[in-house]
Amino acid sequence: MITRLSHLFLRTLRDDPADAEVPSHKLLVRAGYVRRIAPGVYSWLPLGLRVLREVERVVREEMNGIGAQEISLPALLPREPYEASNRWTEYGDGLFRLKDRKGGDYLLGPTHEELFALTVKGEYNSYKDFPVTLYQVQTKYRDEERPRAGILRGREFVMKDSYSFDLTDEGLTASYRAHRDAYERIFSRLGVKYVIVSATSGAMGGSASEEFLAESEIGEDTYVRCLESGYAANVEAVKTLAPEAVPFDGLPAAKVHDTPDTPTIATLVDWANGADLGWTVTAADTLKNILVKTRQPGGKWELLGIGVPGDREVDDKRLGASLEPAEFELLTEADFAANPFLVKGYIGPKALQANGVRYLVDPRIVDGTSWITGADEPGKHVVGLVAGRDFTPDGTIEAAEVRDGDPSPDGAGALVAARGIEIGHVFQLGRKYTDVFSVDVLGENGKPVRPTMGSYGVGVSRLVAVIAEQHHDEKGLRWPAEVSPADVHVVIANKDETAREGAEGLAAELDKAGLEVILDDRKASPGVKFKDSELLGVPLVVVVGRGWGEGKVEVRDRFTGESREVAAESALSEIVKAVRG
Amino acid sequence: MITRLSHLFLRTLRDDPADAEVPSHKLLVRAGYVRRIAPGVYSWLPLGLRVLREVERVVREEMNGIGAQEISLPALLPREPYEASNRWTEYGDGLFRLKDRKGGDYLLGPTHEELFALTVKGEYNSYKDFPVTLYQVQTKYRDEERPRAGILRGREFVMKDSYSFDLTDEGLTASYRAHRDAYERIFSRLGVKYVIVSATSGAMGGSASEEFLAESEIGEDTYVRCLESGYAANVEAVKTLAPEAVPFDGLPAAKVHDTPDTPTIATLVDWANGADLGWTVTAADTLKNILVKTRQPGGKWELLGIGVPGDREVDDKRLGASLEPAEFELLTEADFAANPFLVKGYIGPKALQANGVRYLVDPRIVDGTSWITGADEPGKHVVGLVAGRDFTPDGTIEAAEVRDGDPSPDGAGALVAARGIEIGHVFQLGRKYTDVFSVDVLGENGKPVRPTMGSYGVGVSRLVAVIAEQHHDEKGLRWPAEVSPADVHVVIANKDETAREGAEGLAAELDKAGLEVILDDRKASPGVKFKDSELLGVPLVVVVGRGWGEGKVEVRDRFTGESREVAAESALSEIVKAVRG
Repeated sequence: MITRLSHLFLRTLRDDPADAEVPSHKLLVRAGYVRRIAPGVYSWLPLGLRVLREVERVVREEMNGIGAQEISLPALLPREPYEASNRWTEYGDGLFRLKDRKGGDYLLGPTHEELFALTVKGEYNSYKDFPVTLYQVQTKYRDEERPRAGILRGREFVMKDSYSFDLTDEGLTASYRAHRDAYERIFSRLGVKYVIVSATSGAMGGSASEEFLAESEIGEDTYVRCLESGYAANVEAVKTLAPEAVPFDGLPAAKVHDTPDTPTIATLVDWANGADLGWTVTAADTLKNILVKTRQPGGKWELLGIGVPGDREVDDKRLGASLEPAEFELLTEADFAANPFLVKGYIGPKALQANGVRYLVDPRIVDGTSWITGADEPGKHVVGLVAGRDFTPDGTIEAAEVRDGDPSPDGAGALVAARGIEIGHVFQLGRKYTDVFSVDVLGENGKPVRPTMGSYGVGVSRLVAVIAEQHHDEKGLRWPAEVSPADVHVVIANKDETAREGAEGLAAELDKAGLEVILDDRKASPGVKFKDSELLGVPLVVVVGRGWGEGKVEVRDRFTGESREVAAESALSEIVKAVRG
Repeated sequence: MITRLSHLFLRTLRDDPADAEVPSHKLLVRAGYVRRIAPGVYSWLPLGLRVLREVERVVREEMNGIGAQEISLPALLPREPYEASNRWTEYGDGLFRLKDRKGGDYLLGPTHEELFALTVKGEYNSYKDFPVTLYQVQTKYRDEERPRAGILRGREFVMKDSYSFDLTDEGLTASYRAHRDAYERIFSRLGVKYVIVSATSGAMGGSASEEFLAESEIGEDTYVRCLESGYAANVEAVKTLAPEAVPFDGLPAAKVHDTPDTPTIATLVDWANGADLGWTVTAADTLKNILVKTRQPGGKWELLGIGVPGDREVDDKRLGASLEPAEFELLTEADFAANPFLVKGYIGPKALQANGVRYLVDPRIVDGTSWITGADEPGKHVVGLVAGRDFTPDGTIEAAEVRDGDPSPDGAGALVAARGIEIGHVFQLGRKYTDVFSVDVLGENGKPVRPTMGSYGVGVSRLVAVIAEQHHDEKGLRWPAEVSPADVHVVIANKDETAREGAEGLAAELDKAGLEVILDDRKASPGVKFKDSELLGVPLVVVVGRGWGEGKVEVRDRFTGESREVAAESALSEIVKAVRG
């Protein structure tokens, strides 16, 4: 097809939109690919829609390739299934809820585990029907607190979600693996640089889970990686590499000191170094005890003490992920008042455990390590409190922050932090949803068997932004051939009528050869046209300009920026060859 | 592609679903094409989704063919544009409204005139950019009072909506014509029998408007047609063919009679024939005066008198369409009490007009016609009241029912009623929405010019039901080749291993030839497989069965029911020929 810029519904903008902060957002708006309708709600203009459809095509091809079958479920969903799974409530403000004319409760689907489980339950009833994997490419809705960066984090967006149903754990593992491999092929075809990180499950429930993160400085997901081993994980999923336990023998006895005015780690370290304990004390020698209250779903609030080395903060996200599905809150003044054994700034393990408060510590606090910590009295700390000898925690918890340089859990080297954008998620859900809806089928032995599910998502519309983000340059977008809105962008940069006819002829031949052609046939200066060709980002630009008189056209590579002259008569074959590779 | 029934996510049902009344609904559910999730909200299973996509493809091809450009607007829309056009209110309960987490008002788009007008305003600012036509194939939402017949009238459904923007009325006419022609091509490619009817505008506002109605007994739209001329119109749009005015000369003077206990037309006719007026009186000789109250948007209620021949009822839909955008209601007892000049059962034109009530009459009540009607006193009627002599109405109104046998407005013959399903609508909107949003662009003369709009819709998901409705037989669905989920359905109806291999080989060859193949490779009896092939409705069925041993396969035409034996070695070429035509 030939798309004429004289006809195309397109207006490119010289200036960045006021509300745009990240490059992909600025460029997708400037190049006329998307337009904002409301916060996190966008229109797709012709070129943007083409890129979106190309991404969808690649996703579908790879899904079909692993035997997944496409269906399409509604976005407008009744409350009941989400009530049954508890997500009607759990989703909180993130769910768009509405009522119909009869007062019935509905929601706009944020993800469809419930409906797919019910769909399989409705159709299949025998082990002979399994395994089965279903998917859809569908518009989803989430009322994000902070919609961001244009289509990167929208409230209405396109997602590919698929769901596998297997009768055995081995089957689930195979389905999971097939998806993981398909996702690798998808992102590689789309030209996206990504890492696969171990992930926690979030609100989805279930066990094995990995995220595909596109590498990007503007990403909202922080992850860590070990450059030596390739290990990568969400910060929430990092398991601390605990040191070996140390023998107690010869360690001095714990001793309580008067430490007036030392309610913080900094003041405590100052005191310790002034007290001449015999070594230079750092924050890492102190044991900081944090109090929170936690509550299991439907349960009561309970106190929880958390001990971490004094040189580390507690990371709320890591703590939250460790406690899930319980929620947690910080203590209020009223909580302290109600529990007078909590001496703020001087809390130690002893008073907590003596008063029945569960006490969990960072995995680094192994038996035999010796600590300076609170003595549960105002102005007093204890020095030389040895884990396993003087106190025994109720267990460990991953709550301390992860820092650059921390050892990789696989022991291969040091972790470094990076930022990424979640583009895919693979997830062994297990029987959480088949349990909710009692999805049972006849087993081979005549007894009922309950399928186990996997859930897999690709952020289709988000990928358009991610590709733009990873591939742009200062001049504009640069689309990988697989998703480009056209194969070649022909610029008529010569007012001469024969040049115009030549360009038209070349475009017609390219079209006939099966290429998607953008033809800039507008009445505009060559400068304007060149700038727009750079902004729009088609990988191959052909300029029919000054050289036309000598039978030459110019072929520009948008990625490398290289440009070369080609004889007009061989332009067709050279361009076709360049596109087909 | 080969779709194996042993693998396909499909369960066919022997029994009709309990909630289904019309054939298309029953069959689409039984054949596993769609599944109900909530009233008017359906899932598309694999085969249904394929048919839907084929319909979308045909629609897109024809839209692209007239130079329309595809974009995609969100379904989740902010209130403000619909507030500006007044449709936030006008849509009443038919609009799904919701709030986001910040309390902002949103709606689920039922149609997108507002957003397209704003989109064009956002991009274009010069006469040089026009005309432009944009379209989308998109999921729409309407909270129908009575969702019906499965996907035929859903609350979530797929529509193709397009919008033309022209600077001149001639341009609008051309855009309208182009759409009308494209729709004719679409419906003809889809194998749909339809009529084009003149339509009123409904809540959309604007002028010229036609509907495409699929002929169907189960349709909710009643229309009338003239078999002689081909004229067809929505009942609301039928213009009454008024008789010529008659001279008054020699008509007897009007005379008031005592007509006790004659509050209805029937009792009045009985009285008249008993009174021996000199001719046989029928209801058509009486003038029935109906009172309603009407209110313009934002205005006050006002009384309105409507006079129709006594043998006709007032058709609420026609009355409503005539009064639009005003609404109307019947009078309450309180209204009668407040207007004592309204003598129930004996209302005549005189008291109405004497008391300032607007009085409109059916177009048949022309000057010189003589009527028996109320005399505005209990138990009294007037005989020989002549229009134009004894009373002069304030105008005419199309409110009386249209009946089989009424003359066609074009004078060519008689009208007959028929039922249809709306599948398309073309509409000259004019400047209603460009006025609302002050869409002005620079004119050729340097002055601002305001584009005029057309709005055009095709019910894409509904068409799947309509095609099923028009083409099924008692055995199942029958898809036209253009939209069939496959080109050919190969049934393995022979347990012999060589037959199975032969069928697999044939399927592979058909696939290689570019055909979409369904292969029934299930372990099931030939009878079950034949029944399913009829239910699923692929136009061409190839049976590899008993004849295989003699080198023969059977080719069945699902439309004609014909079946013939074909030599196995020529099966490929014959089938390809049959499909490619």
